[in-house]
Amino acid sequence: HRRGIPEGILAEGKTPEEVRDLAEAAVETTGRALVTRADETHRETVESTFTPTAATVSVDDRAGTITVTSEAFEEPSLAAAVCIITGGTSDYPVAGEAGAVVEAVGADCTVIQDIGVANIDRLFDQLAEIRAADVVIAVAGREAALPTVVAGQVDGPVIGVPVSTGYGHGGDGEAALGGLLQSCTALSVVNVDAGFTAGVQAALIARAVDEAAESRK
Amino acid sequence: HRRGIPEGILAEGKTPEEVRDLAEAAVETTGRALVTRADETHRETVESTFTPTAATVSVDDRAGTITVTSEAFEEPSLAAAVCIITGGTSDYPVAGEAGAVVEAVGADCTVIQDIGVANIDRLFDQLAEIRAADVVIAVAGREAALPTVVAGQVDGPVIGVPVSTGYGHGGDGEAALGGLLQSCTALSVVNVDAGFTAGVQAALIARAVDEAAESRK
Amino acid sequence: HRRGIPEGILAEGKTPEEVRDLAEAAVETTGRALVTRADETHRETVESTFTPTAATVSVDDRAGTITVTSEAFEEPSLAAAVCIITGGTSDYPVAGEAGAVVEAVGADCTVIQDIGVANIDRLFDQLAEIRAADVVIAVAGREAALPTVVAGQVDGPVIGVPVSTGYGHGGDGEAALGGLLQSCTALSVVNVDAGFTAGVQAALIARAVDEAAESRK
Amino acid sequence: HRRGIPEGILAEGKTPEEVRDLAEAAVETTGRALVTRADETHRETVESTFTPTAATVSVDDRAGTITVTSEAFEEPSLAAAVCIITGGTSDYPVAGEAGAVVEAVGADCTVIQDIGVANIDRLFDQLAEIRAADVVIAVAGREAALPTVVAGQVDGPVIGVPVSTGYGHGGDGEAALGGLLQSCTALSVVNVDAGFTAGVQAALIARAVDEAAESRK
Amino acid sequence: HRRGIPEGILAEGKTPEEVRDLAEAAVETTGRALVTRADETHRETVESTFTPTAATVSVDDRAGTITVTSEAFEEPSLAAAVCIITGGTSDYPVAGEAGAVVEAVGADCTVIQDIGVANIDRLFDQLAEIRAADVVIAVAGREAALPTVVAGQVDGPVIGVPVSTGYGHGGDGEAALGGLLQSCTALSVVNVDAGFTAGVQAALIARAVDEAAESRK
Amino acid sequence: HRRGIPEGILAEGKTPEEVRDLAEAAVETTGRALVTRADETHRETVESTFTPTAATVSVDDRAGTITVTSEAFEEPSLAAAVCIITGGTSDYPVAGEAGAVVEAVGADCTVIQDIGVANIDRLFDQLAEIRAADVVIAVAGREAALPTVVAGQVDGPVIGVPVSTGYGHGGDGEAALGGLLQSCTALSVVNVDAGFTAGVQAALIARAVDEAAESRK
Amino acid sequence: HRRGIPEGILAEGKTPEEVRDLAEAAVETTGRALVTRADETHRETVESTFTPTAATVSVDDRAGTITVTSEAFEEPSLAAAVCIITGGTSDYPVAGEAGAVVEAVGADCTVIQDIGVANIDRLFDQLAEIRAADVVIAVAGREAALPTVVAGQVDGPVIGVPVSTGYGHGGDGEAALGGLLQSCTALSVVNVDAGFTAGVQAALIARAVDEAAESRK
Amino acid sequence: HRRGIPEGILAEGKTPEEVRDLAEAAVETTGRALVTRADETHRETVESTFTPTAATVSVDDRAGTITVTSEAFEEPSLAAAVCIITGGTSDYPVAGEAGAVVEAVGADCTVIQDIGVANIDRLFDQLAEIRAADVVIAVAGREAALPTVVAGQVDGPVIGVPVSTGYGHGGDGEAALGGLLQSCTALSVVNVDAGFTAGVQAALIARAVDEAAESRK
Ligand SMILES: Nc1ncnc2c1ncn2[C@@H]1O[C@H](COP(=O)(O)O)[C@@H](O)[C@H]1O
Ligand SMILES: Nc1ncnc2c1ncn2[C@@H]1O[C@H](COP(=O)(O)O)[C@@H](O)[C@H]1O
Ligand SMILES: Nc1ncnc2c1ncn2[C@@H]1O[C@H](COP(=O)(O)O)[C@@H](O)[C@H]1O
Ligand SMILES: Nc1ncnc2c1ncn2[C@@H]1O[C@H](COP(=O)(O)O)[C@@H](O)[C@H]1O
Ligand SMILES: [Mg+2]
Ligand SMILES: [Mg+2]
Ligand SMILES: [Mg+2]
Ligand SMILES: [Mg+2]
Ligand SMILES: [Mg+2]
Ligand SMILES: [Mg+2]
Ligand SMILES: [Mg+2]
Ligand SMILES: [Mg+2]
Repeated sequence: HRRGIPEGILAEGKTPEEVRDLAEAAVETTGRALVTRADETHRETVESTFTPTAATVSVDDRAGTITVTSEAFEEPSLAAAVCIITGGTSDYPVAGEAGAVVEAVGADCTVIQDIGVANIDRLFDQLAEIRAADVVIAVAGREAALPTVVAGQVDGPVIGVPVSTGYGHGGDGEAALGGLLQSCTALSVVNVDAGFTAGVQAALIARAVDEAAESRK
Repeated sequence: HRRGIPEGILAEGKTPEEVRDLAEAAVETTGRALVTRADETHRETVESTFTPTAATVSVDDRAGTITVTSEAFEEPSLAAAVCIITGGTSDYPVAGEAGAVVEAVGADCTVIQDIGVANIDRLFDQLAEIRAADVVIAVAGREAALPTVVAGQVDGPVIGVPVSTGYGHGGDGEAALGGLLQSCTALSVVNVDAGFTAGVQAALIARAVDEAAESRK
Repeated sequence: HRRGIPEGILAEGKTPEEVRDLAEAAVETTGRALVTRADETHRETVESTFTPTAATVSVDDRAGTITVTSEAFEEPSLAAAVCIITGGTSDYPVAGEAGAVVEAVGADCTVIQDIGVANIDRLFDQLAEIRAADVVIAVAGREAALPTVVAGQVDGPVIGVPVSTGYGHGGDGEAALGGLLQSCTALSVVNVDAGFTAGVQAALIARAVDEAAESRK
Repeated sequence: HRRGIPEGILAEGKTPEEVRDLAEAAVETTGRALVTRADETHRETVESTFTPTAATVSVDDRAGTITVTSEAFEEPSLAAAVCIITGGTSDYPVAGEAGAVVEAVGADCTVIQDIGVANIDRLFDQLAEIRAADVVIAVAGREAALPTVVAGQVDGPVIGVPVSTGYGHGGDGEAALGGLLQSCTALSVVNVDAGFTAGVQAALIARAVDEAAESRK
Repeated sequence: HRRGIPEGILAEGKTPEEVRDLAEAAVETTGRALVTRADETHRETVESTFTPTAATVSVDDRAGTITVTSEAFEEPSLAAAVCIITGGTSDYPVAGEAGAVVEAVGADCTVIQDIGVANIDRLFDQLAEIRAADVVIAVAGREAALPTVVAGQVDGPVIGVPVSTGYGHGGDGEAALGGLLQSCTALSVVNVDAGFTAGVQAALIARAVDEAAESRK
Repeated sequence: HRRGIPEGILAEGKTPEEVRDLAEAAVETTGRALVTRADETHRETVESTFTPTAATVSVDDRAGTITVTSEAFEEPSLAAAVCIITGGTSDYPVAGEAGAVVEAVGADCTVIQDIGVANIDRLFDQLAEIRAADVVIAVAGREAALPTVVAGQVDGPVIGVPVSTGYGHGGDGEAALGGLLQSCTALSVVNVDAGFTAGVQAALIARAVDEAAESRK
Repeated sequence: HRRGIPEGILAEGKTPEEVRDLAEAAVETTGRALVTRADETHRETVESTFTPTAATVSVDDRAGTITVTSEAFEEPSLAAAVCIITGGTSDYPVAGEAGAVVEAVGADCTVIQDIGVANIDRLFDQLAEIRAADVVIAVAGREAALPTVVAGQVDGPVIGVPVSTGYGHGGDGEAALGGLLQSCTALSVVNVDAGFTAGVQAALIARAVDEAAESRK
Repeated sequence: HRRGIPEGILAEGKTPEEVRDLAEAAVETTGRALVTRADETHRETVESTFTPTAATVSVDDRAGTITVTSEAFEEPSLAAAVCIITGGTSDYPVAGEAGAVVEAVGADCTVIQDIGVANIDRLFDQLAEIRAADVVIAVAGREAALPTVVAGQVDGPVIGVPVSTGYGHGGDGEAALGGLLQSCTALSVVNVDAGFTAGVQAALIARAVDEAAESRK
């Protein structure tokens, strides 16, 4: 509902018809809809609902997102940059969900994958690019050391996102969440696998940055 | 170590002498020190260490913070506003810890207390002031409904801080933490009682806002 | 077994035949039966068991309830009103289960959906109707702020029902349960997804209210 | 704040002066104050604050409650009865806290102690008296079987209060809480040791009962 | 391996072939085998393995047990009685598993079902029969009040078995386990759903009773 | 209350006066009293209450028990033997509490200490003595491997008692409790540090053994 | 990446194609690949990828491992011995995963199965062989007493691996993990079911042993 | 008891006299004793027990260790190096406890403090020294990212030790423990604050390394 932030529709636990109805309502009232955690049945129903002449439907299979944008909708653009980083390939779905929000608000969005601390050189190679962003979203599973290490290397705010890709004690994301909450470098945190929430928080910061620039021009 | 953000020295679990040594080192190298979770013995030792001609020592008893600033230190100033709100009076120590960081970076800092949802009118009375901030820190214990409700009313980023002032199941801050992580309005979160971390995160956002304004002037 | 409160038959974990036998016995001895958490196989078996001339079978698919009432059964009626409110559409099954009990005892039953605190205006729009009830059942998942906020606005007893519709830390209803137990406004609580229990508790209060009126007439 | 329900002031974690100030404010605005979880220092300060000519201070040492009533205050009276039962003597403080609220609203309040299920005959001896109440508060620690057994024997609503008087696994009240939430007889529940909350909930039901009688007279 | 106690073969997590091999080995070396938690595939394979002339295979579908006894095996008989009681019908599988062990050692075995505390009269009706046993196994899910109540009524040892048939907080048997460990009447306890372990423990007590009688004859 | 089993009075959380009153009542009605978890203040008060001519008071400081026996009381004697074993010296208080019950019922009671599995030879040296008992109580902290190993070596029932003497993850007795519940040799279990409960359960078995012998003489 | 230790590719949660690509890359850059937690679809795709002339693919179905070795790869050989022991047959998959790593580094690898403490003689029969190893990996589920007992009998380092093959409280490997962390004999531990991690740790120790021998020759 | 590894005596929970007796026995039978978690009262009693002519007593106040060595004892010496690293100063007590064991077995022992990942340059500055060791003990609290990062940089085995120096969710060492068990670089782990266990495990590896060198000389 807020200026620029798309309404998120959580498909999980809803029928394709319920998701479709909610998406239609959102497009009608706000010009677009962002469906998250969608499976194939949700995708098929949503894709067949919107005619290409009236709306663009873009889908990210791995991230489980569907973005619907009406023709009339005027894409926003923010003078602010968000960098999303991940520890490993299995973190992609969560990172992609965050990215869908960041792109929807029109911020600059860079995604840098597979820079977990096991091979820390890959991380240091990318530091300049990461530091260039106004806000960083760091997505990591297992022990989630990446957000902690990165927050010690950059000057802007870092949002840590724990991921549930491990097994054994803490493998459901609880070890990652606990580690992020205890981080010795200052982070703010969202829930396990909550890419959407991280994306909104980053988008709100990006908007604050953009507005500051605007209001002083 | 970062430009403008003071080094935090966690007094809890350290002797007064250890805290004093760390504070002296910080003042020498960075011009100031911020001690958190200090008790009376820490305060006495730190206060008697710094001569009034060389440094200013300011203490917040309820928040457990000690801020030491050398004469030579040039106070920073950021063109950004942070609003810290609390549900009840027992949330003050955590809010005060956050406030010490926000003030140290030179952001505008407003503290609004006792606006928990039990008497929701008090919250609505303050909404205009809260909305005026670039970033909100919402501090709350027990069920911590306040940050969730506020995040639905303001357009900027909200950082939720769970507080450990309840009793019974979840009274150690776990109920508040769980509620903030599950918030149906998008929040980012820090650990239970982690006013310092929330303050740093808000300060980093304030700096990003300030920099945006600067770089486009 | 108690006057007016239907015997609940939990279908989950039982075969259709077991559920049918229990339902037949309940109808025979008490005039009706209330099956909860029924799936399609339970429904089919129960529906084909009772002939329309002997009993009415009414089904709520989304709530998973089946109510069987023998022709001979004299519907009770209580001079008391229960209002059931929900935070979002995924809370409906639990609310519906509670409603089935409340209706079975003959209390006035109003259901108001989708008034979660993210859009708090919708809640305030309904306050007059909610306040008119003798007892409120507030059903909510995720952080479950709704029951806390409502209990601060109404003068009667509120029963909070946590729902298991989240994901990540506390998403199985534990965050909602913890929040309700810690509520800074006084609530009583039932277990996660326990619509039936909430319904019975509200029904018992409704009956006490009704009896008070009766006995003093 | 609500008609008849006293404002609760949780003394735990507050200084005697803070409690005194809150109590004075409550007496001034509402005619009385109910302090809970008060220790000796709170009691001394509160008792020496109110002059006997202006207010009555009544203290329950074991329950940790202090009730202050101004001379001008008109004691309410409700045509409704609450029965508070306990499993053992160590449950008294929690029961007493509940009782202070129930008495403050002017409901009939009976307390029956030491009727835990280990000697179930004592419970059955008291059943007639328990059944006479409009609402029952059942307070129990350890495995908390008492509320479950009682709810199967009475026709009115039962509120279960788990108590933290055990040791070992679940001895902090978690076993009692879990058992009450899983009760095979329908209960509503409050948090561990939350006598105040149970008292308020019972008081709200008592008021609903009283109002029903009134409005139909 | 011990005199009279059959070797238990846990089928869960094993292929039918693995179970068959273990059963054949057990029958060969000890004259019989007791398979627990068997599904249909295990049953079919085991049943088709043993020819009726060489061994008797008896199956309890609801309990998931398969008992194989070679023709040559001499059934033991103990002068001791075990009574197994359950709270509700969904406790049967666990009770049946316990019963299979008790019968295998040749103790007297009585099973009394559906005497949970919700309808406490049914329990009191059976007390004489329960008291006649040398040892009682009390099987119960949800809040598991039954073993606590029974242990207060009988003079012999009671073994409590928590069952995982609830839902919500503690519904996986943890509430029942916690309640049994905290029981205010003295019980010993086995793990959630561990009918086999309870059966062995009761069998060992039965054997001790039998031996005492023998050795003093 | 049962024949031969002394009433346990848990001193923890009670004042010396409350304990004294309960002890006097127990001695008067049953001829004796067993106080557990008593500290020095409880001991002093109880010792000074009973005059040596009227009752014997025997105290076990390390176990925290006080046994009071009136002159008139006829000590029971059971033809059954209980063996209590411990892993290390810090398990003594729990073992001693169990022993006080076993001795009070008049069973043969042997205590064998410090035979934890770290030095497994000490355990095997004592096996003959352990096997001679009708029932074994095995008390162990940390990982509690002792009861599991012993239950594989003896033919009678073994009751495992977890002890809270560790530190770190599971050091509060939870690791020991979990291990005993999962034991691959069949054990029954009591709560963490619940020496009293283990003693009662062993005493009930001892009595069943004794009665069997009696009734068949 | 390190000399001799194969890169592990966790198949769980990856598509067959993703696993194949990672395996091809690993074989190309390091001469081999070790896939863990592979199911049938992973196996089929990997097996059909590598032509027998270019690489050897060896599969362990029960352990879920696939080892691919290019023709050109020169098998390492370490002068060090690892012994892997298990409590029961259901521990094999975890032991096999560990073994695949140990064999890949060229250490001597002995696997001894089914020597759990229920039948402790089998364990003592194998002690000489276990003691001959430089490092022991002890794999056990349920209460996991085996690693504790073995660490008291051998002079080298023991790595304990908890396994998730139980049911009820702690049956997901948490009881085993807690027991290993609390072991009264000194162990180091890896996560539940983490055969791969245990294998790598043992391999690193084996290499240190081998290097010590080399460097002093 | 094993060759070279001193017997550890845990002082916590023991009286000074008990510790003294155990220490005397250990010195008499093995030539030395290592007391851990000792407070001032333990230290005073132990120090006054051993006369300087008969034994050397060396104390580490911060680590809480006391090492007693008889004159006759021949100090062992191992050709192997252990490096102990810590994240921050509050980790020292745990590191010192580990160091006491490593030094007692005569291995080379280096301690490098305060190289937590917040300032990762300090860690990289020390890498050459860390890599020179045969085995690394990495001690860290809060999120414990240090062991994970280090294990990715060195070729030998790393033992991670979680420390309980945080606050809030996971601050009792559980977040650190969870992170180490989930580490994406292979670690073995000991319990929270278990410096002694880590020291023994490193000592056993050091001895295996030393023996390998010896046996091939
Ligand atoms: N109250 C606090 N809560 C959380 N972190 C803190 C706090 N105060 C200081 N810190 C952080 O802890 C680090 C210092 O830890 P230490 O070396 O133990 O003094 C600083 O770099 C801060 O980032
Ligand atoms: N013993 C108690 N347990 C739970 N809630 C309480 C208790 N005493 C007072 N309260 C509630 O806590 C609120 C006051 O909290 P506070 O502002 O911290 O004094 C009151 O409005 C009461 O609803
Ligand atoms: N150490 C103990 N652990 C567990 N239960 C105990 C203990 N001592 C006494 N009890 C039990 O607690 C009951 C007494 O509780 P109370 O009424 O609080 O004194 C007795 O009937 C005993 O069954
Ligand atoms: N079964 C396993 N358990 C734990 N870690 C594993 C396992 N198999 C592979 N790994 C580790 O996981 C990393 C691969 O993770 P990924 O990038 O998700 O394939 C490897 O570098 C290994 O260190
Ligand atoms: Mg940073
Ligand atoms: Mg907002
Ligand atoms: Mg209200
Ligand atoms: Mg009832
Ligand atoms: Mg009994
Ligand atoms: Mg045995
Ligand atoms: Mg060993
Ligand atoms: Mg490494």
